[in-house]
This record gives sequence, C-alpha cells and structure tokens, in this order.
Amino acid sequence: MSRTLWTDEAGVLRTVDQTVLPFERRELALRTLDDCDRAIREMQVRGAPLIGAVGAYGLALALRADPSDASLAHACERLAGARPTAVNLRWALGRVRGRVAAAPPARRASLAWDEAGRICDEDVACNARIGEHGAGLLRALAGRRPGPRGIARAAAAAGGALNLLTHCNAGRIATVDHGTALAPIYRLHAEGVPVHVWVDETRPRNQGAALTAWELAERGVAHTVIADNAGGLLMMQGRVDAVIVGCDRVAANGDVANKVGTYLKALAARDNGVPFYVACPVSTIDPETPDGASIPIEERAAREVTHMAGMLDDGSRASVRIVPEGSAVANPAFDITPARLVTALVTERGVCDASAAGLRAVLAASPA
Amino acid sequence: MSRTLWTDEAGVLRTVDQTVLPFERRELALRTLDDCDRAIREMQVRGAPLIGAVGAYGLALALRADPSDASLAHACERLAGARPTAVNLRWALGRVRGRVAAAPPARRASLAWDEAGRICDEDVACNARIGEHGAGLLRALAGRRPGPRGIARAAAAAGGALNLLTHCNAGRIATVDHGTALAPIYRLHAEGVPVHVWVDETRPRNQGAALTAWELAERGVAHTVIADNAGGLLMMQGRVDAVIVGCDRVAANGDVANKVGTYLKALAARDNGVPFYVACPVSTIDPETPDGASIPIEERAAREVTHMAGMLDDGSRASVRIVPEGSAVANPAFDITPARLVTALVTERGVCDASAAGLRAVLAASPA
Repeated sequence: MSRTLWTDEAGVLRTVDQTVLPFERRELALRTLDDCDRAIREMQVRGAPLIGAVGAYGLALALRADPSDASLAHACERLAGARPTAVNLRWALGRVRGRVAAAPPARRASLAWDEAGRICDEDVACNARIGEHGAGLLRALAGRRPGPRGIARAAAAAGGALNLLTHCNAGRIATVDHGTALAPIYRLHAEGVPVHVWVDETRPRNQGAALTAWELAERGVAHTVIADNAGGLLMMQGRVDAVIVGCDRVAANGDVANKVGTYLKALAARDNGVPFYVACPVSTIDPETPDGASIPIEERAAREVTHMAGMLDDGSRASVRIVPEGSAVANPAFDITPARLVTALVTERGVCDASAAGLRAVLAASPA
Repeated sequence: MSRTLWTDEAGVLRTVDQTVLPFERRELALRTLDDCDRAIREMQVRGAPLIGAVGAYGLALALRADPSDASLAHACERLAGARPTAVNLRWALGRVRGRVAAAPPARRASLAWDEAGRICDEDVACNARIGEHGAGLLRALAGRRPGPRGIARAAAAAGGALNLLTHCNAGRIATVDHGTALAPIYRLHAEGVPVHVWVDETRPRNQGAALTAWELAERGVAHTVIADNAGGLLMMQGRVDAVIVGCDRVAANGDVANKVGTYLKALAARDNGVPFYVACPVSTIDPETPDGASIPIEERAAREVTHMAGMLDDGSRASVRIVPEGSAVANPAFDITPARLVTALVTERGVCDASAAGLRAVLAASPA
C-alpha cells in the first residue's frame, strides 16, 4: 500500500494506528461510523487532511447502515465534534452532506463513498503539486549553498546532500499521501537528489521522533533525529540548507500558526541566512483572520508535558512521568511565526510571498 | 541542611544523588576517594562548581587513607579523568594539591580537608554576590515592564509577579549553594518580591523538569514547566520579563557557550525586547578563547535523545525508547549565543557587557 487511507480487496477501509507508531505498525479496519469517530477522537488518525478524509468515509459508513435524514444529521454532528478545532473535518463533512442530501436514501451511501474517494484523490493530487513546487525551490538551493553567518561551517554541509530541517509531522501520514512539508523531500528523493533531513523530535507529543522519523525511514530518506534545542546550533554551523514546515493556519497578512517551536526555528533561520519555507494547501489560508495575534492558541493537557510515552526494554509500551508532581505545567500547542520570517509559502497553486498581496495572488490563481 | 554538599554530625561528607531526582531524595555518604570518583563519573553530582568541590574533598579523603606522594598523584590523576571537560574540577584539584604538596604527610589530609571547605565557602559567597547583583537588575524590571513587540499581551503578565524564564539547571544543586542563574531568583523570593519562573524542560537530559523544578519547589518558588518549544510564544505574548541562564564558558569577545537551546531563547528574547542575562562566576570567563567559534561543542550519547527516563505509575523508575531503532541521532550538548544577543553578564564582581571591554573590566575589578 502507499496511501495512509485505503480500501483492501474486500472493500474495507483501512489505515494505520498512529498512536502505536513508531514501535508497532498496526492496521485499523474502519467498518462503521463508530470506528471512524473513535479513530479521530483517540488520534489514531491525525493531521487535518487525513482527519477530513476519515470523517467523509465515516459519513458514508453511517449512511450504509441507515440512509435516513436523521442518520445523516446525527452522523455529521457526531463526527464534527470528534476534533472540534479541525476545520478540514467540518469542510469534508459539509461537502459529502451537500452531495447526498437531495438524493434518494437508497443511493446516498454509494454517493457518499464516491465523494469521500474524490476528497482523498484531490488531497493526493494537491500534495503532489506542493511537492513539485517545493522541490523546485529546494533544487535551486542545492547549487548555491548560503554561507553560514555564524560559527564554523561544518564538514557535514560539504557532504553533498541537501540538508533540510523540519519540525513536527507534516508528512505522508498527516495526509492521504505525500504530505505537505515532506512532499518536496519525497519528490527530490525519488528524483535521486541526495537529501538528508534533520528531524526535530517536537516535544511534547514527539511527532517528529515518532512519526516523521518513522515515515522517512519507511521511504529510505536519510534523516537524523535531534532535540528541539539543537536546530539553532546546526544552522549556525552551516549544516542546514533550508527549513521546511507545514502549518495549521495562515492569516491574511502572512503570519503562520504551526506546532509550538516553529517560531524559534524561523528566528534561527533568519539569523543564519537559511531559507524558511511553509508548505500548505491554499485551504489553510484564512482571509478572515487578519493576523497571527487573532489566531487562538490551543492549550493542551498537562500530561503531554509531564509524561513521555515510549517502549520499555522488553518491547512493551509505557509512559513515564518526567516532571515532579508538585510543579505546574503549561502546554500551548501552537505558536505564531510572523510573516517577516517566512521566506515563501509553497502551495498547490505555486510559491508565494507570505504577505497580503502574495496570498491574494495565490488565492486568485487557477486551481489547476 | 541547606548546602548541596555538607558534613553531618559524625563528620561524614554528604550530598544528594542527582540521578534519582526529582522522584527520590537519596542522600549519598562520600567516605572515600572511590565514592567521590564514582559520584562525579556517574553524574550523581553535576554542575561545574559542585564537581570541583567534590573533587577537592575526594583528594582529602584519599590522603586520609594514604598521605604519600604516590597516593596524592594517583588521586589527582584519577579524579581529573572523572569528567575530562570540567575545567573547575582540574582547578580545584590543582589548588588542593598546591596547598598540601610541601607539607609533611601526617598533616596533608587535614590541610586538604580544610582547603576543600574553603573552596565550598568561596563558592557559596561568590554565588551569593551573583544573587545580589542579579537581583538588582531584575528588581528594576519589575517596575518597568517592556511591552511585547509581537502578539497580544497576556493576562498573566499583569498578574504582578516578575516572570523569568530559565533553561537547564544553573541552580543550587549545580553549586554548593544558591546557584548562579537561580541565585538572583532566590534572593528576590527571600525579599518577598513575587517571582514566577518558566522552566524549560531542557531536552535531552531534562535538567529543567527534573532538577530546576525540583529545587524551586523545595524553596517554594512559583514555577511552571514548559516544553523547550514554548518559550518563544510566551515571550511574544509578553509573559516573560527576562531570561536568565548560567553558562559553561564565556569567550573573550563575549560569546557564551551554554546548554543547547540557549541560543534559540536568546533570539526570541531579542525579537521581543526581553532582556537576556547570563549569570556566571568570573572563573567562567576564558580570555584564551577568542570567540564562540573556538569553543568545541561536546557531542553526547545518542541514548540521551532516543530514551527518556522517568517514573512509572507504580513508582518505579524506567527508561522508554522514543525514537525508532533505525533512525540516526545527533546530540550536541551545548550551543553558542553570540555576544550581540546577551543583554548583560552577571558575575560576583558585578554586572558587565558581553564584550571584550566589558570582560576586561570585570576581570580587572576587585574580587571583593
């Protein structure tokens, strides 16, 4: 299989349980509304595009069991509440609902299933185009490597591979395929361009160490996991040619919300003359949000900071507490990278400036 | 007890085993050269000043068992190799050796023991002065809080407490008492100034979550543990009044080597108009090192990144693997913060600019 979400020979929808990665590759069969709802709520699937696709299929499975108006309304409401902040989920549900609402009940399940499939196909095509546009930018860097402004140029930089740094997981398994930030990397790798990825572990949920490292290894892309603290030094040493990340929302002025810690890497990139790219579908651009200050920052559970999940020496999984019981914890999930630190946005419609004018132009461009 | 290293009623040297903090407070009795050597090697004691003090006592204990020239030479060599990069350790050993070498063997153990005690007393006095000078700087900030340059000012900033952010552990337990970066914080707390500390967990060894949080809790100082990724957002939100860290070496031009990740916080501080202070004894200033590029960066074991140690639900301690087996890991232990990002250095001789002129002035100042 290649996609993160696929149907097997028996026509059963399948995905990989992301809560047990990287230590176990456990396939999930999604046969009912309940299965899809649980997968989203428990974060067995995550990443806005993937959640949208699973939600769309969940609606189709609900209609297969009961195609009535009441069933449709109930399934929509339930799935939309599974991850209240994921805009993609509500968008995908609305699209499937709009497709089937006027159809006779007997045809609804089939229409919904086909629409969910189209949502998946479009996601794959969109990310492939992000990969093309991003690869173009990165390929140009391989030729003219910027000199480090800071400390010594490391031998590693002269090793030939293009050294990219990414934060969190904006990869294949956050989408139906290809990913956003990782799409250009997979594309270059497929073309035979030597690429090496510095993978921020991305505390507190460790999506970098657990998911990005896993999927890069699966595809044979050279990579090195680092503590989130290390990226600034690597850039100062001239060991990073570009930073590329995904994002959760782009404000109308080009400010970008992404996984907490992104802003620190953008600052280090600017300080060392390293390009900082943000890859995202145009659906991530929100003209209704004027700037980064208007983006609410989700505060998540303290346990993500106080505990760390992993694998014991005997192969079983466990969580260990790493913060004393009496200490308070804060856990903002996102931060804001000001537009002035973003070298360019990479979308399926092309590359643009992180500015009001740049965003208007890309939104007005042809979707093809 | 108050000090990190003390003698009990029976005259036995004691410390706290830092490898089992924060979940267990286990006292160690250091009765022999072997005990001291093991404590340093296994990082039961850590922090340059504390290691120096334990090394000095280790020499005294070796001489108590055998005061011969051969014993002195052997103990010096062995202890100096326990942490080869810790300059303080070799300095303390040299000082004790110089004190006893010309004395008759029968008097050596007693002379060495007294000299080790003086090294401890001087460390405590030095850090107390760092606390005074740093408290003066921070007290001034409590009055005039800089406005956030970035996003929204958070309600927390208006709560009255002075909000400080620190990275790693430059606290009481890295020294004989008071700490360096934490000394001004303890001083303000003792004076009744409301202080709240944002504690970077400090991956990969988690000295912030494990040690800084523990010692702040022990002294009743309000604090909140955060992922290393979160500090940039907090500064952008106006929730940090100053950053204060310790350091491992100051180069002649004012560049500072400290725990990896310090540079990222210095960048965020500069971007948001937040003062960035470095606290250290003048012995940390190395006029022989021209600049940050000349400071070698220690690469530590991959296991610090691939595994995380903590406490299981049943109260036992365990390490869990968090990085896939097949992924490479890099683990630089320090990074370089350029002098241009350091607002001021806080030493026992006063506050100075992180510049060649500033360092020359503080080195020339009276030690008193």
